[in-house]
Amino acid sequence: MERPKQNEVSDWYLKTIKKAQLFDYGPVKGTIVIRPYGYSIWELIQKALDPEIKRLGCRNAYFPLLIPSSFLEREAEHVEGFAPECAVVTHGGGKKLEEPLVIRPTSETIMYSLFAKWISSWRDLPLKINQWANVVRWEMRPFPFLRTTEFLWHEAHTVHAAMEEAEEQISAALSMYGDFFLKTLAIPVIIGKKTEREKFAGAVYSTSCEALLMDGKALQIATAHNLGQNFAKPFNISFLTAKPSREFVWQTSWGLSTRAIGGMIMTHGDEKGLILPPRIAPIQVVIIPILGKSPRERINKSCSRVLDKLRRLGIRAEIDSDDETTPGWKFNEWEMRGVPLRIELGQRELKEKSLVLVARDKREKITLPMSGIKRIPEFLQEIQNRLLERAEEFVKENTRTASNFNEFLEILQTERGFIRAPWCGNSDCEAEVKKKTKATTRCIPFDSEPTTGRCFHCGQEGKFTPIWARAY
Amino acid sequence: MERPKQNEVSDWYLKTIKKAQLFDYGPVKGTIVIRPYGYSIWELIQKALDPEIKRLGCRNAYFPLLIPSSFLEREAEHVEGFAPECAVVTHGGGKKLEEPLVIRPTSETIMYSLFAKWISSWRDLPLKINQWANVVRWEMRPFPFLRTTEFLWHEAHTVHAAMEEAEEQISAALSMYGDFFLKTLAIPVIIGKKTEREKFAGAVYSTSCEALLMDGKALQIATAHNLGQNFAKPFNISFLTAKPSREFVWQTSWGLSTRAIGGMIMTHGDEKGLILPPRIAPIQVVIIPILGKSPRERINKSCSRVLDKLRRLGIRAEIDSDDETTPGWKFNEWEMRGVPLRIELGQRELKEKSLVLVARDKREKITLPMSGIKRIPEFLQEIQNRLLERAEEFVKENTRTASNFNEFLEILQTERGFIRAPWCGNSDCEAEVKKKTKATTRCIPFDSEPTTGRCFHCGQEGKFTPIWARAY
Repeated sequence: MERPKQNEVSDWYLKTIKKAQLFDYGPVKGTIVIRPYGYSIWELIQKALDPEIKRLGCRNAYFPLLIPSSFLEREAEHVEGFAPECAVVTHGGGKKLEEPLVIRPTSETIMYSLFAKWISSWRDLPLKINQWANVVRWEMRPFPFLRTTEFLWHEAHTVHAAMEEAEEQISAALSMYGDFFLKTLAIPVIIGKKTEREKFAGAVYSTSCEALLMDGKALQIATAHNLGQNFAKPFNISFLTAKPSREFVWQTSWGLSTRAIGGMIMTHGDEKGLILPPRIAPIQVVIIPILGKSPRERINKSCSRVLDKLRRLGIRAEIDSDDETTPGWKFNEWEMRGVPLRIELGQRELKEKSLVLVARDKREKITLPMSGIKRIPEFLQEIQNRLLERAEEFVKENTRTASNFNEFLEILQTERGFIRAPWCGNSDCEAEVKKKTKATTRCIPFDSEPTTGRCFHCGQEGKFTPIWARAY
Repeated sequence: MERPKQNEVSDWYLKTIKKAQLFDYGPVKGTIVIRPYGYSIWELIQKALDPEIKRLGCRNAYFPLLIPSSFLEREAEHVEGFAPECAVVTHGGGKKLEEPLVIRPTSETIMYSLFAKWISSWRDLPLKINQWANVVRWEMRPFPFLRTTEFLWHEAHTVHAAMEEAEEQISAALSMYGDFFLKTLAIPVIIGKKTEREKFAGAVYSTSCEALLMDGKALQIATAHNLGQNFAKPFNISFLTAKPSREFVWQTSWGLSTRAIGGMIMTHGDEKGLILPPRIAPIQVVIIPILGKSPRERINKSCSRVLDKLRRLGIRAEIDSDDETTPGWKFNEWEMRGVPLRIELGQRELKEKSLVLVARDKREKITLPMSGIKRIPEFLQEIQNRLLERAEEFVKENTRTASNFNEFLEILQTERGFIRAPWCGNSDCEAEVKKKTKATTRCIPFDSEPTTGRCFHCGQEGKFTPIWARAY
C-alpha cells in the first residue's frame, strides 16, 4: 500500500479519477461532470451531513441562483473578494438586461436581502437556514474536484441576537465538520482560525478545517465564518429586543463542498488506485464469483445468497457477474475503484462453506466460514479505522517545525507538508512569505501552544504559530 | 371545505403560499425563494421519487450548469425552442468570454456531448442518468412555483439500442409519475401524447401528465419525451452492435419540477388555506396543548408523550407550545398551513385519557382514547384517500365534451376545466383555436375512445380527441 511519489501524485490523481469514472471534463474550462460513481459519494456525504446540519437547528431552503450585481457591492470587502471570480449574465429572454446579474459565488447577499424582511423581533431569532446548491467561481487554474468553476456545496447561514451565540454556532459547526471528517471520510483535519489575509471576504474572522493531501499540499476542506454585523448593517437586518430597542443581528456562514471528494481521494489512495473508506464507499463489498468449469450455477446462486445477506446487514454490496472478464481483471478493476472489501467465492469455498475476504488496504486473503458473514460490518469498521490511523500517521510525519526561513525553505523544497512556524502577525510579512515560497498560512490551530521565539521570516516578536503550507 | 371561487383562486393562492411561508419573491423578476416549509415539501417529493427513478435503472450524476451556446444550436428545433428563454453569460473571471454560455434550460445538449464519449458499444447500453438540478428559463409571465425563471427539477436521460426500448422507457416513466401523483400528491392526472405543436423542442414525440387545478386551468405536471435519434445524430452518439455495425442510439428524457408543489396546492386547498395530503405534509400531525389554569405541566408532559409515540410510529409530528398565542389562533394557523391532522389535548382529555382529533378536510372533532394512538397512521391514510377522491370528483365534474366551437367557447367562458373535443389533427387549426380562445391541446389521452365526428373547430374529419384547456 504505497502512496504514489509526491511528484507523481497529480498524474496519479487525474488518471485514477478518470479511469474510476468519478468525473469527466465539462466543455467549459474549469467545469466538470460528476459521474454516477463520484456523485454517489456526494450523495453519501449529503446523507451523513444533512441530519447533522438539521440537528444544529438549520432548516433547508432554496434561494435564487441569480443575484443583482448591486447586491454584491453592498459589502465592500465581499465585492472586492468575489467580483473578479463572478460569471455575469447580461442577457435574458432575448434582451439585454438593465442590470447585470451574477451567478451566486456564495449566497450571503441574496439570502440576507430576504432575512432583512423576515426578521423583525427577537422572537424571530435565531434564524438558521441551510442550502444545498451549485455555485460558480471563475477558476483560472482548475483541478478536478479541488478547484472547479462550478461546484456543489452546502452553505448554512445563521442569524443571532448576540455575538456570543454566533461564536457558539461557529464552534458547533466546526465540531460537526471535525467529527464528520474523522469518522466518515477518515481524514484528520487541523481546525483553527484564518489570518486576516486569508479570511473570507466580508467576515470578521474565518475558521477552517485543513487537511494534508498525499502530495504534501494542504486543502481547506471546510470553513466557518463569523460575519459579525458586517452584513447586517448594509442589508439592514435588525431586530426589536425585549427591552425594546432595535439592534443589528450577528451572523455566521459555513460550508463544505464537492472538493471534499477530491480531498478524500488524495488522502487514502495508493499505487493501485482509489481506497474509499467504507463509510463513504458507494460499494462497500464486491463479490467476485470464481467460476471454474463445473458448478457455475451453484457458485452464482451462492454469490446471490451472500449478496442478500450482506444487504440485509445494511451493507452496500454488488456482484460482478460480468462474463467477459476474468477474476484477475476484476480484482484489479475493483481495487482501482477503491472498494474496501472484496469477497471471492469459487468451487473450493463452495465445498468448504467459506468465503475469501480481501481488504483493499491490506490485500491479504482471509478465509471466513460462511456462517461468519454477520462479522463483515466489523471488518469494514476495522478498515475504516486503519485508514484513519494511516492518514493520521501521515499528517504526523509530515508536520514539521521551522524556526527560521532557511529551515522553512528546506522543508518546502524537500517534503513539503504542514510547517509550524512562529509569526509576527503582520499581513505584509505573510504576503512576502507567499511571494517567495508559494506557502500560505492555513490556520492558527485552536490547540496551539503559546508562541515562543521570533517570527521565522522577519525576526520580529512571534505572536502566533500558524500552520503554513502550499495549498490547493 | 369550500374551494375559493374560480376568479379568486389566483389571489387566494398568492396570499396563502406567502402567509404559510412556502415562498417569497426573489429580487430578480421571475425568481422565487423556496422557504423551509416549502422546501421540505420538495425534499419529500425527492425522497419519494428518487428511489423510484433508481428502480427504473437510472443513476444520479451532475453535469455543468453552463453550456456553450453552440451546443444548443446543434439540434435545430431545440435551439429554436429554447434560445429565446435562455439566460446568457457573456463575462467570466473579469473578462469577456470568447463564446457566450447559456445557463442550462435543460441538459440534453451538455449531457449528450458526453454520452457520445462514454458510449462505444452495445455493452454500454442502456445508459440511464438522472440529475437533480436547477434550470433557468426566462419567464415573461411568472407565477410562483408554476412558472418561474429558475426552478428545481429532476431530469432523467436514457439511451437505448432500439426505438422499442425507448418507448418502453417512456411508458415506465409515465407509470411511475402517474403512481406518484395518485398515491403521494393525491392528484389525478390525465396521461397522453402531446400534439406536434405542443411537443418538446427536439423530440420525436412528447407525452405528459396533465392536472386540473381548482381555477379550471390545466397544468402540465410532468413530461416524458421520446427523442428518437434527433440528438444522437448531431451529437454523434453511436454504438457498435453485436453484428458488428455502427448505429445511432435512441433516447428519452423525462422530468418533474417544483411546479408540482404549486399544482398540489391548487388541487387541495380550501377557503381556510392549504390542505396538504399526509404523504407529502412536512408536518402530518400538530399537537395543540389546551392549557387551562391548573395542570399546565401535566398537560405539556402528556403532549410530549403523545409526540414521542407518534414519532415512533414514523409520523412527522410537532407540538405548538408557543405561550404567546391562544389555542384558537393556533387552530387557524395550522389549518391555514394545511397540516392534515390536529390533536387537541387539555384538562378534560387528561382526565378522560383521551385525545381530540380534527382532520383538516372534515374539521369535525373526534375523541380517541389515548390507547388508540396507534390508529393514527390509519386516520392519515383515510385523509389521503378522501383528498384523492375529492380531487378525482373535481376532475370528473370539470371534464366536459364539446362537439362544436360554440359549445367549446361557452365552456371556456363559464366553468373552464378540461374539454374533450374532436380535432382534425391540423397544427394550423390548433393554433387558431389558441389564438381565439387561449385554450391549447393538453394531450391526447392514451385511454381515448376512437374519435367520431368532425373537428369541433374547422369541421374537417376528426382524427384525435385531445383534452383542451387553458393552461399554466
